[in-house]
Amino acid sequence: MAEKKKNNEISQMGEFGLIRLLTEKIKIKNRSTLCGVGDDAAIMDTGKNRTVVTTDLLTEGIHFDLIYTPLKHLGYKAVIVNLSDIYAMNAIPSQILVSIAISSKLTTEMVEELYEGIHLACELYKVDMVGGDISSSLTGLTISVTAIGEAPDNMIVYRKGAKVNDLICVSGDLGGSYMGLQLLEREKQIFGKGGSQPDLAGYDYILERQLKPEARRDIINLLAERQIKPTSMIDISDGLSSEILHLCDASETGCNIFADKIPVAHETRKAAEEMGMEPVTIALNGGEDYELLFTVSLDHFDLISAMPGISIIGHMASADSGINLIMPDGSSAEIMSMGWNSLRGRK
Amino acid sequence: MAEKKKNNEISQMGEFGLIRLLTEKIKIKNRSTLCGVGDDAAIMDTGKNRTVVTTDLLTEGIHFDLIYTPLKHLGYKAVIVNLSDIYAMNAIPSQILVSIAISSKLTTEMVEELYEGIHLACELYKVDMVGGDISSSLTGLTISVTAIGEAPDNMIVYRKGAKVNDLICVSGDLGGSYMGLQLLEREKQIFGKGGSQPDLAGYDYILERQLKPEARRDIINLLAERQIKPTSMIDISDGLSSEILHLCDASETGCNIFADKIPVAHETRKAAEEMGMEPVTIALNGGEDYELLFTVSLDHFDLISAMPGISIIGHMASADSGINLIMPDGSSAEIMSMGWNSLRGRK
Repeated sequence: MAEKKKNNEISQMGEFGLIRLLTEKIKIKNRSTLCGVGDDAAIMDTGKNRTVVTTDLLTEGIHFDLIYTPLKHLGYKAVIVNLSDIYAMNAIPSQILVSIAISSKLTTEMVEELYEGIHLACELYKVDMVGGDISSSLTGLTISVTAIGEAPDNMIVYRKGAKVNDLICVSGDLGGSYMGLQLLEREKQIFGKGGSQPDLAGYDYILERQLKPEARRDIINLLAERQIKPTSMIDISDGLSSEILHLCDASETGCNIFADKIPVAHETRKAAEEMGMEPVTIALNGGEDYELLFTVSLDHFDLISAMPGISIIGHMASADSGINLIMPDGSSAEIMSMGWNSLRGRK
Repeated sequence: MAEKKKNNEISQMGEFGLIRLLTEKIKIKNRSTLCGVGDDAAIMDTGKNRTVVTTDLLTEGIHFDLIYTPLKHLGYKAVIVNLSDIYAMNAIPSQILVSIAISSKLTTEMVEELYEGIHLACELYKVDMVGGDISSSLTGLTISVTAIGEAPDNMIVYRKGAKVNDLICVSGDLGGSYMGLQLLEREKQIFGKGGSQPDLAGYDYILERQLKPEARRDIINLLAERQIKPTSMIDISDGLSSEILHLCDASETGCNIFADKIPVAHETRKAAEEMGMEPVTIALNGGEDYELLFTVSLDHFDLISAMPGISIIGHMASADSGINLIMPDGSSAEIMSMGWNSLRGRK
């Protein structure tokens, strides 16, 4: 090998750049492969329904810190982040596979706690754990989950598909998970410096958003009940700004998002202000919300407006109009991805 | 938590014990889940055909050593070990998902090399890479592969299903991969002590068995052509002794295996003798052969005998007759699992 590029080139390239580099040459070989790399989950043609599959790898020190993450919550969250990807295809998860590599510092009880969380998520989301792998790790804990789901062909929703003027909608509220993480990090620092025991009272909401997020099956069910099929959809794992860029990129559109329409919970706003952060910035770039970001045709305006827990935050526009955040005073700024990137760490 | 069990209890319990502990409470919830934990791959009902899925996690320092493992080979092998599990269900792999966690010591070129191996395996085995995840690791490299395959329902072969008197067959030859590993470890030790550059000339066969194994698609095709459906099947990843115990356990049988019928390549035998090891012991316990171990009805004796690359090494017996290795002198010994266990390291 001639001159080696340094790993910081990998971190500059980022996860998406590296994925692009590593997958650009892939050619599909199987008739049953309908959609490969590049969406929340892959799609396979397996007969009457489509099979949808996704996988996520969580590594200690990068995605979680065992100092403040209860193992049961960690197991639960590892499943949820995958189910969220299946729901983001408008599909229903049915099976998961879980592989873990465990370091010698973990006891049997600790591994059991982790699996209690995994089983609890399976129970609540009616998913079967059908396989996996357990091995040692010389260092930290690694958890890899693959989720499989199904949906009728005509119900699958991709990142592509949004049209100009479609309404941009988001479920729940954003930024809470990130503020929960900031709080845990702050208390860890104080405790590490010989400070007092962590004081987490009154922060339940943002802590739960970080430690025990839920996947929005309820929204998928609600949309189905009201016969609304989104034109595009993605789950918010890396932050709203990153995800809206994915939708616009795949759909070849631009968009206008109104800053004052982005839903931020009272508790999130309060914590952000306490820590001297801007709530809208947190909501745009925080990540790990596992809410659904989707677009619907303008025809559904009345139906969507009446749906509980959904905010209309903007609309799609032509590609040449750009990807804009409109401020309450009418000024606008270009949205750039500043979300979570596990190869760079948080910005 | 009261008294904590130590991690060495995990290592005593072993992977299978831990898996049992962690999965015994699982109840199947989805109609489409036909077979969950406990075989080479899970089975799902997705319409006309069955979907088969399996996953494996490889961690640096446990499953591979980057000092002597070329990254391209590593990527190739990470795919092969999963395809092998799909073939072991008598199914055809069609898609894979690959997740990696990379440490800062890896350059972009190194990650590309790894993926070259992954893509090469996909190319040769006609499998689509449909998804995955890339993230950082604070420490070593971790690779998690999930493989998905398909087969008509009536063609799937489980671990269970072998009957008394069924012939026990194995493809290829055994123990070569383990001897390749021993050789690499020996040369690493010598080199580490300031010794000469590794001398690996003349050991190509066993090195290839270790570094670039193949999955036995050819055997699955051959069995299909000759209309032989095995009564039970497993791939040899942990060693013949471990795998035959799985087949007997699942099929509720005993067996007699004839030591002098176990296929060992000339090169493997030679290397074992050089290093003062017993070839049959290596073949029984070595692991990572990725050959197929299967049983067929006695009616197929003529057909199987005529098949190239298949050895008949014994026959199934009643459960109460035990799991026996018959030596050339007629004496017998009970087979116990001494194969690879990533939670204990090699025995």
